Amino acid sequence: MSNSKNPESLTDRSDAMISRRRFLSGTATGAAGVAVLHKTVADITIDPTKQQGAPPAALGERSPFEKPARKVISNILSTTPLQDLHGTITPADLHFERHHGGIPLIDPDKYKLIIHGMVERPLKFSLDELKRFPAITRSCFIECSGNTGEYFRADRKNTPQTLRGLTSQSEWTGVKLSTLFREAGISSRASWFLAEGNDAAVMTRSIPVEKAWDDALVAYAQNGEPLRPAQGYPVRLLLPGWEGNTSIKWLRRLELGEQPFMTREETSKYSEPLPDGRIRQFSFEMEANSVITSPAYPEKIEPGWLEVRGLAWSGSGKIVKVEVSTDAGQNWSVAELQEPVLAKSHTRFRYLWNWQGKPAVIMSRAVDQTGYIQPTHEALRDERGLGAPYHLNSIVGWEVRADGLVYFDVKSWA
Amino acid sequence: MSNSKNPESLTDRSDAMISRRRFLSGTATGAAGVAVLHKTVADITIDPTKQQGAPPAALGERSPFEKPARKVISNILSTTPLQDLHGTITPADLHFERHHGGIPLIDPDKYKLIIHGMVERPLKFSLDELKRFPAITRSCFIECSGNTGEYFRADRKNTPQTLRGLTSQSEWTGVKLSTLFREAGISSRASWFLAEGNDAAVMTRSIPVEKAWDDALVAYAQNGEPLRPAQGYPVRLLLPGWEGNTSIKWLRRLELGEQPFMTREETSKYSEPLPDGRIRQFSFEMEANSVITSPAYPEKIEPGWLEVRGLAWSGSGKIVKVEVSTDAGQNWSVAELQEPVLAKSHTRFRYLWNWQGKPAVIMSRAVDQTGYIQPTHEALRDERGLGAPYHLNSIVGWEVRADGLVYFDVKSWA
Repeated sequence: MSNSKNPESLTDRSDAMISRRRFLSGTATGAAGVAVLHKTVADITIDPTKQQGAPPAALGERSPFEKPARKVISNILSTTPLQDLHGTITPADLHFERHHGGIPLIDPDKYKLIIHGMVERPLKFSLDELKRFPAITRSCFIECSGNTGEYFRADRKNTPQTLRGLTSQSEWTGVKLSTLFREAGISSRASWFLAEGNDAAVMTRSIPVEKAWDDALVAYAQNGEPLRPAQGYPVRLLLPGWEGNTSIKWLRRLELGEQPFMTREETSKYSEPLPDGRIRQFSFEMEANSVITSPAYPEKIEPGWLEVRGLAWSGSGKIVKVEVSTDAGQNWSVAELQEPVLAKSHTRFRYLWNWQGKPAVIMSRAVDQTGYIQPTHEALRDERGLGAPYHLNSIVGWEVRADGLVYFDVKSWA
Repeated sequence: MSNSKNPESLTDRSDAMISRRRFLSGTATGAAGVAVLHKTVADITIDPTKQQGAPPAALGERSPFEKPARKVISNILSTTPLQDLHGTITPADLHFERHHGGIPLIDPDKYKLIIHGMVERPLKFSLDELKRFPAITRSCFIECSGNTGEYFRADRKNTPQTLRGLTSQSEWTGVKLSTLFREAGISSRASWFLAEGNDAAVMTRSIPVEKAWDDALVAYAQNGEPLRPAQGYPVRLLLPGWEGNTSIKWLRRLELGEQPFMTREETSKYSEPLPDGRIRQFSFEMEANSVITSPAYPEKIEPGWLEVRGLAWSGSGKIVKVEVSTDAGQNWSVAELQEPVLAKSHTRFRYLWNWQGKPAVIMSRAVDQTGYIQPTHEALRDERGLGAPYHLNSIVGWEVRADGLVYFDVKSWA
């Protein structure tokens, strides 16, 4: 039934194509310490059908050919390699990091969460007690409000990771904060609560009680397993769709009150001066945003059909539309969204593009269920003045040169 | 606004409760090699608010207090620690393993997939070429058809892992097999194809072409990142809902034909003798199944309200109902299903139970969208004779003793 067992007779489609690996390898940050799986890369010349492979193990490892890595920006920041990811989940060890006092090491058997203030019954919960309450699992992104912010430079050699890498997506499990508040019997006059972390910064934020009745979680698991230390082990607050710093990690205390507690995080940081001199404060919700993850710097593309791929997300709910422009925002076409589209979650979009080999600027813009449309950089500047490095969700572009090389479009950020 | 800052005044709810950690720690398999995160457990006495924590890193690590591990059953099998997981995702390094010749190490730059046989254009694809095609992302489980099978012993000290640990759930990304078949122009007479792996077993199975038009993927990513070697790096076949061995790992060749190729895997293995002497062959679809992951051996529970938690799944589509019995299957109550419920996916269920401190046997049974109801062990034996260790999806129980200790209910497997 087959006459094509001789590989020489097959049509080989690879010679004329660019190797993405070859281009990306130059930028790999080299995750030191990724162990080789039982064999060395030097063994690779052996036909795998001619020798027994490696046995099962208690924990699997990555292929030695794959070295994904967060980019450590400073001693408080590392970014997710969005260009190396597929689908929507961020592997836990690649979730972006933003610490205010480093990652504490906490003994889960000594862990306590205190709820006090304007409550009938001040309570203290152990981790086991929290796990006994009815559990909730949901997927959502966490995005640092400083994404494309203070650390960002509008350089043409930006990658998706250096551009928008302060957002990551996980499946989280925990107990509803409303369940714990009911257990403590919070006062009907309580309208704000303080959330406090057990880290060297004693990170604290004031949160409206409404968020607890809406969708706040006290989370102890991420992508099926206990939280990683960098994401708040053993317990964090999770405020879906809100700026990442409010989802207090290493959560140790919740205090109910009648007004915001005015911590340093809501005065010296995490508020935005507006053009008219006022200050935008408690700007919790992350606005709709998107990024094209491929093609992007440092890729090189060839003329013909290719899939423009990226991620869109909104703190206000579901993404309802993503549009892609291949002419720097003059015309827009609707991209396909990957089902299931979940609220406050990274949503994968794809758009088939027939690149003709001419210079082009490709852009994406997200629309969420409230009708909000991701703004241009100019519109964002007019509205907000850009006096603080937060909530900078404007449309960005990638410049495709005639030779197929792709660079960050610096003009889109001007 | 608060008068309860003195921790001594708080109601401590932990003393009377059982520490699940304490009980589970006796069974930890001790994943050797899990590195301590920058600090040692001995440092834990230092108040984390009084010293700077660990800095960001290229890759995150687990807390040194968490040591999840697959259980290596033999040189061909390892099982997922279902009792240690939350939500639905299985972390990639904890995905169960079933190899037929060990894990090969394959250079992705030399990778080729050949499609030939009854096709107009025999083709050879590199990994980069496969990634250029329109991509699909979906979540689904993979279950070994030998789950609760050959290696299983009906011992009361079974855990969820030793009982039903040969199923895992991931978000997969790849190209539709139908896209590749169209590219090759498969003959209208082609009704089966052979899928062949590049491992020491040269694992091969015959698959009806209909599955390609339905939902088969050629997958290169798992939980957001490239496949792990144990799951088929760089490319595997993915046949959602079908027995795991058909989702050929390290996929290198697809040959189209007019009839099954009758490989050794469909004669010496993966077929089931029936009570009437016939053989059930090409029994691809995994029937609806479920497992209670807590409470389960080796937990000890206390009287009062607790949440019975578990996972249900079906190769036929969505789970529409899970019922829980606390009296060994005499009466059944409907459990709550965790949204979103996805087809051919692990579905988390929860049931609030007020345990009165008397002996009890708890069971779960799943119902899928076809109306199929997970059978009792007796019904399964009557129908299929149990002459082979495959597709053994019958209802199982956990025995709760008056002292709160929980054991596998050996009688449910008799």
